[in-house]
Amino acid sequence: MIIHNQKPNLATLLFAYKGTIIAIIWPKVLFTVLLSSLVVMTHGTLYDYKLVLTATPFTLWGLTLAIFLGFRNTVAYQRFWEARTLWGEVLVVARNLTRQTLTLLPDLPAAQQRVLSYRVAAFAYVMRDCQRGQAIGEEAAALLPAQELKELQDSDNAPNMLLLRMSQAFVAAFRQQGVDSILLAGVEQQVNRLSYVHGGCERIKSTPIPYPYILMLHRFVHIYCFLLPFCLVDSIGWLTPFVVCVLAYTFFGLDALGDQIADPFDTQPNDLALDAMSRNIEINVRMLLGEQALPQGVEARDGVLL
Amino acid sequence: MIIHNQKPNLATLLFAYKGTIIAIIWPKVLFTVLLSSLVVMTHGTLYDYKLVLTATPFTLWGLTLAIFLGFRNTVAYQRFWEARTLWGEVLVVARNLTRQTLTLLPDLPAAQQRVLSYRVAAFAYVMRDCQRGQAIGEEAAALLPAQELKELQDSDNAPNMLLLRMSQAFVAAFRQQGVDSILLAGVEQQVNRLSYVHGGCERIKSTPIPYPYILMLHRFVHIYCFLLPFCLVDSIGWLTPFVVCVLAYTFFGLDALGDQIADPFDTQPNDLALDAMSRNIEINVRMLLGEQALPQGVEARDGVLL
Amino acid sequence: MIIHNQKPNLATLLFAYKGTIIAIIWPKVLFTVLLSSLVVMTHGTLYDYKLVLTATPFTLWGLTLAIFLGFRNTVAYQRFWEARTLWGEVLVVARNLTRQTLTLLPDLPAAQQRVLSYRVAAFAYVMRDCQRGQAIGEEAAALLPAQELKELQDSDNAPNMLLLRMSQAFVAAFRQQGVDSILLAGVEQQVNRLSYVHGGCERIKSTPIPYPYILMLHRFVHIYCFLLPFCLVDSIGWLTPFVVCVLAYTFFGLDALGDQIADPFDTQPNDLALDAMSRNIEINVRMLLGEQALPQGVEARDGVLL
Amino acid sequence: MIIHNQKPNLATLLFAYKGTIIAIIWPKVLFTVLLSSLVVMTHGTLYDYKLVLTATPFTLWGLTLAIFLGFRNTVAYQRFWEARTLWGEVLVVARNLTRQTLTLLPDLPAAQQRVLSYRVAAFAYVMRDCQRGQAIGEEAAALLPAQELKELQDSDNAPNMLLLRMSQAFVAAFRQQGVDSILLAGVEQQVNRLSYVHGGCERIKSTPIPYPYILMLHRFVHIYCFLLPFCLVDSIGWLTPFVVCVLAYTFFGLDALGDQIADPFDTQPNDLALDAMSRNIEINVRMLLGEQALPQGVEARDGVLL
Amino acid sequence: MIIHNQKPNLATLLFAYKGTIIAIIWPKVLFTVLLSSLVVMTHGTLYDYKLVLTATPFTLWGLTLAIFLGFRNTVAYQRFWEARTLWGEVLVVARNLTRQTLTLLPDLPAAQQRVLSYRVAAFAYVMRDCQRGQAIGEEAAALLPAQELKELQDSDNAPNMLLLRMSQAFVAAFRQQGVDSILLAGVEQQVNRLSYVHGGCERIKSTPIPYPYILMLHRFVHIYCFLLPFCLVDSIGWLTPFVVCVLAYTFFGLDALGDQIADPFDTQPNDLALDAMSRNIEINVRMLLGEQALPQGVEARDGVLL
Repeated sequence: MIIHNQKPNLATLLFAYKGTIIAIIWPKVLFTVLLSSLVVMTHGTLYDYKLVLTATPFTLWGLTLAIFLGFRNTVAYQRFWEARTLWGEVLVVARNLTRQTLTLLPDLPAAQQRVLSYRVAAFAYVMRDCQRGQAIGEEAAALLPAQELKELQDSDNAPNMLLLRMSQAFVAAFRQQGVDSILLAGVEQQVNRLSYVHGGCERIKSTPIPYPYILMLHRFVHIYCFLLPFCLVDSIGWLTPFVVCVLAYTFFGLDALGDQIADPFDTQPNDLALDAMSRNIEINVRMLLGEQALPQGVEARDGVLL
Repeated sequence: MIIHNQKPNLATLLFAYKGTIIAIIWPKVLFTVLLSSLVVMTHGTLYDYKLVLTATPFTLWGLTLAIFLGFRNTVAYQRFWEARTLWGEVLVVARNLTRQTLTLLPDLPAAQQRVLSYRVAAFAYVMRDCQRGQAIGEEAAALLPAQELKELQDSDNAPNMLLLRMSQAFVAAFRQQGVDSILLAGVEQQVNRLSYVHGGCERIKSTPIPYPYILMLHRFVHIYCFLLPFCLVDSIGWLTPFVVCVLAYTFFGLDALGDQIADPFDTQPNDLALDAMSRNIEINVRMLLGEQALPQGVEARDGVLL
Repeated sequence: MIIHNQKPNLATLLFAYKGTIIAIIWPKVLFTVLLSSLVVMTHGTLYDYKLVLTATPFTLWGLTLAIFLGFRNTVAYQRFWEARTLWGEVLVVARNLTRQTLTLLPDLPAAQQRVLSYRVAAFAYVMRDCQRGQAIGEEAAALLPAQELKELQDSDNAPNMLLLRMSQAFVAAFRQQGVDSILLAGVEQQVNRLSYVHGGCERIKSTPIPYPYILMLHRFVHIYCFLLPFCLVDSIGWLTPFVVCVLAYTFFGLDALGDQIADPFDTQPNDLALDAMSRNIEINVRMLLGEQALPQGVEARDGVLL
Repeated sequence: MIIHNQKPNLATLLFAYKGTIIAIIWPKVLFTVLLSSLVVMTHGTLYDYKLVLTATPFTLWGLTLAIFLGFRNTVAYQRFWEARTLWGEVLVVARNLTRQTLTLLPDLPAAQQRVLSYRVAAFAYVMRDCQRGQAIGEEAAALLPAQELKELQDSDNAPNMLLLRMSQAFVAAFRQQGVDSILLAGVEQQVNRLSYVHGGCERIKSTPIPYPYILMLHRFVHIYCFLLPFCLVDSIGWLTPFVVCVLAYTFFGLDALGDQIADPFDTQPNDLALDAMSRNIEINVRMLLGEQALPQGVEARDGVLL
Repeated sequence: MIIHNQKPNLATLLFAYKGTIIAIIWPKVLFTVLLSSLVVMTHGTLYDYKLVLTATPFTLWGLTLAIFLGFRNTVAYQRFWEARTLWGEVLVVARNLTRQTLTLLPDLPAAQQRVLSYRVAAFAYVMRDCQRGQAIGEEAAALLPAQELKELQDSDNAPNMLLLRMSQAFVAAFRQQGVDSILLAGVEQQVNRLSYVHGGCERIKSTPIPYPYILMLHRFVHIYCFLLPFCLVDSIGWLTPFVVCVLAYTFFGLDALGDQIADPFDTQPNDLALDAMSRNIEINVRMLLGEQALPQGVEARDGVLL
């Protein structure tokens, strides 16, 4: 996630480069500009053959592009926001489970309360590692019993296995403290929510936007941008490269941004800040447990928070 | 579902053919291109009668097409995504039920736990077979008691019958273990979720997008693409077939893609990967039960995962 | 609901007439075509006064029409789909209640189980009859105790009254069998869902899309189609009637289709297949009860399933 | 809510005036038409200065207007429909609570059952009066114990206070009848739904669409309609007033309609029929209680149901 | 939130300035107008070089702008409305918890009931202070036990800590009064709702719309507005500054408004009225407790309610 101050000044808005999408698309945009310049220089002539293109095809194509880009954009953002909402729920559930551990099991020794709650905090780290396809990191390791950690590392689906252990531990603790099934059912419901979040993130990750959409859009945008100079050269001359550049910037930019946020669990600049969110969950759990020495929140590097 | 690597290079994006929608629509697109070429050759004259078409009709038609295509696209994708979400819930519920079997019925013999959980895994296969209109396959057969399998094969609505047996088995197990109704009610709620998923998928399958939408859109797109050359020929000459080709590709492509994803339970390239998802469910259930020899996940064939 | 095979051939798509929206709108379209022809014959002259219309008004009007038609279309479809979803829930709940009758009240005599479950199946028929404003039909009568049927026939709101009797019967049966309140509460929740579905359908039926939308759209579409020939006649001559015809077909067609699906409980070709759905519910309930002689599903007549 | 027969004939659609939005906007439309006529008469000349406006500004403005109007329209309708859905839930909950009073408290004296249920029916009237900013009317007064009515009339938030009394009465009745907490919790959940509905309606009422949207849209529409004649006069002459009139009708009409339905609790023609809905709730409650003499439903006056 | 009377007259609509978005964007708009005037004076010539721009680039750009602005607008409003809905739920839950305190714990001493309910009211203030990044104010302080207040002031996440104390107090009170777990579970569910609201608001606050959207939109709008005069100057002359002014007003206005409502917890004129809402919650809680001397609601200052 790119961090920026809320009221950037005009200069920032117009000339910012770092962390923006330009860093990714500039070769394409540059190529388009060079191509346009070439077209202007040759007056739209290709091997002595004058390519005549009126505005009509671009107007007609434009409508289709509008549908395509609008649709793709909306769907990509919905995926991004659903993923964010699911992760937001991990925070909420982690707080609820920690709170309920403290309020419903007040006589449980503090150490046991801590083990129960730490496991919930670890879930966020484990889920992040799983979504990013990396091994379970040290952060989760520090929060989990050694034996469970080993088991998770061997598992094909660590978050799922962790939920099993979490559930077993809560059942055992409630039974041990003689708390009735009704309150246990409430806790089990929260564990189900975590299971739902985990499944929802897997769904987003494993089901991309149908490939033909991406393919058609890519092709269309390229054809559009590469042919546009032939249409404009006769009427606006040397302004052609500039006009094409602006259009290429937005088209390629929207496309690249859509790629990033449609699969928000990666570590690209506009992806979700999973590191920061899971650290925040740990901090919240520890805070509720009354710990004084809380870990630091993750900070942005080069304006990007991951 | 078409599998592709996340960062396809430019060549792939521009020239990929296998698994794309072009494999389906190329005859129509080719026909349109040939027709356009013919129009260019005859200078838009039909039996000595010059068909004069300005851009105005196409601009006016274009707006309607935009509404149509945008609407159809959105609705088709919503159906696709709702179906995916429903199937995603089967995974979540299968995990929850297996987990609850293990945590709430810890003293049940492992063999009985396995029968309970296998039935949940079998549900995914049975639902898939039902949605694809095929007989119950070997995968489900291997997970179900022989007698129940027979009953399901004779049933008109096997998933529904399976839920009855699942529910009865859970009630019997909970009663046998003396677990109270509160925790049983939680399990029953999960079974209700499966019932909801099954009903939701039947809803999508049995209620297509109202036929006149499809019909009007098809007709409109064809008329549009077949008349467009007469409008363009006088201004852009031999570029006409190319311009028409690009438009025909996107219009027919969007149309064909919409057809595929609006009914996502089939086995066309862009349909949901029901095989892979139900196999994944089985793997997850077995993993939670602590089995070591897990089945292999389904792999993509020719880039298509089903 | 219009039934069609999933892969209609091109001829069907282009020339299908039966069951399509054309059967309703052809007089208007024909009138528009005739009017256009007249305009072409008189070269756009009305009583020696030449009506000059450029494309500008139509382009400007077009944007507004796009907003209107898109909005109306979306809202109509949302109503259609919400109604379908609500009806889909009746099926799910009917299955759940039948299943729970069998699993939670296993010792209840089969005859009593049947009465309880039949009442749920009857609910679908009664709700359909209520929504279509017709008397309670034979299908419901065959499933209900004679006395209750009489009471429902006298009632102003039969589905509501039926839910009261259903709820009372379940409470009585649970109390009689000594099942605890927790499982009864689950059943009561399902009855509440039926109540919610009934209320939701009443909401859709009693609250049409605000009338001025319909009125403005109708007026606008008519003016647009009737004036368009004057704009086109000078540039495209005898192609005018054809261009206007295509536009009139889609505008009037979208309008008529929107009318049908916005109020989906009627018996027009594109309305919901309430007969088929309620029959399906009865079949499902009977199947779960283990009956062998199941009723036939409703079949489409002339390609229309109601 | 404007009542109309479902299949209005063409004449009605084209010439209906009563209850339509025209009754509100005709002065503005007339002014626009007069202005256009003046422009035509002076050939677009203002104090010897010829105002030359091409179509380009209007095409560019048009896109922005499309975004604006589409957005505003959608948001206004969403508010309308959410309010309708919330009110629809009052009906559902009123039925549920009455039904549960009868089924879960079967031994409660009928008079006490009636008091409990009447209070639920009164809630609808009290909420309506509160939303319309009027004193609690006779309809609610007839359904409530005299002392409670007094208390409500003195209260700043009568619906909220009524829910407290409702809840207390249910708790007392359940305790008195010795019904367990589980079923009481179900009733309490329904009361929470009423609380949610009340809060939701307050939310819609107290938070209008952000004012700048309304302001910008208003200004833009006025400028657009007042300048348009200068653009059209040279090309279409005396058709200008007509074209502008049609556009002004839809723009001002959409705007006025949006105003009405965005705040749907008023008593304007297109607002929600709160009178009819709350009366319907009373009828349903009385019907379930088995009363024979049911009140009449509210009827439309001059085609408007309130 | 800007307060305005529901039926502003025409003069207000056209000339209102205070509290509108113009107060923020006028420098940019003015600059655009001055630039346009300069362009008209020099007839579009830059250093003797005539910048020729046809309408085509603006038409093509326009479509992209439409996608951008529409998307951004919709997303910003969704964030605004979700935040409002979440806050609306605090009111509902506060009422529910106060009501349940009174009905389920009728024998608890009034002083203790008051402490329980005041804590709920304080939650709204604490959450507001937290969202606005300010210290816990006097309003919350007056409602909380001194010791808890101290603890909250020291906490990194005061609302979260307050929920822990709230939950503990409810559990203690229910246990003390011997009320069963079922009703306590209902209360705990309400506390979970508060936790969900708190997490939801944090989600909106911590995850802005992806920065590249904002950046691209800003840049595009500026380029568009600054180049437009060169396109218009030849055809409409001195009307250019006016046309550009109107467009700049809406583009910059939409942009600025989007900025405000996308992050609705600030204290800008169009942000949510958190002060008024939390005061209203306190009033409602006190009213239910039967207090006579209720605090005044927050009033608008200069037409702005915060």
